[in-house]
Amino acid sequence: MRSNVIFFHAGCPVCIEAEQKVALALDQSKYTVEVVHLGQSKARVAEAESLGVKSVPALVMEGQPFHINFGAPLSALK
Amino acid sequence: MRSNVIFFHAGCPVCIEAEQKVALALDQSKYTVEVVHLGQSKARVAEAESLGVKSVPALVMEGQPFHINFGAPLSALK
Repeated sequence: MRSNVIFFHAGCPVCIEAEQKVALALDQSKYTVEVVHLGQSKARVAEAESLGVKSVPALVMEGQPFHINFGAPLSALK
Repeated sequence: MRSNVIFFHAGCPVCIEAEQKVALALDQSKYTVEVVHLGQSKARVAEAESLGVKSVPALVMEGQPFHINFGAPLSALK
């Protein structure tokens, strides 16, 4: 079974780079990557926060947040 | 041809997590991941720096640095 990975972003240039280079480079046979734009899906900001996400872009793999570079703090997206 | 990716780390817990979860999750059919421990290979600190790496752990994909969470600044490894 493939693991679920969530890539949270906000459409910023740093986010797009991380998505194109890192998130899409994950092994698709092992991971299902869901891409969530927090600027467009504000309802999911609380979910990101509860997963430990502090800024975007961030990958959450097996419940663990990995912040990739720095685009924007989560507080800017509320 | 597979792209080369370098994962720079320093053996810290944050680094190990990022290696196990993110670096090893990259599609091995598309990427060759080289793992460099900068604490053990101090000669490569200058290389990491020239690639734009500011802290570890970091992935360099196609010449672009992606800092994943924060373990240690590069300056601590010189």
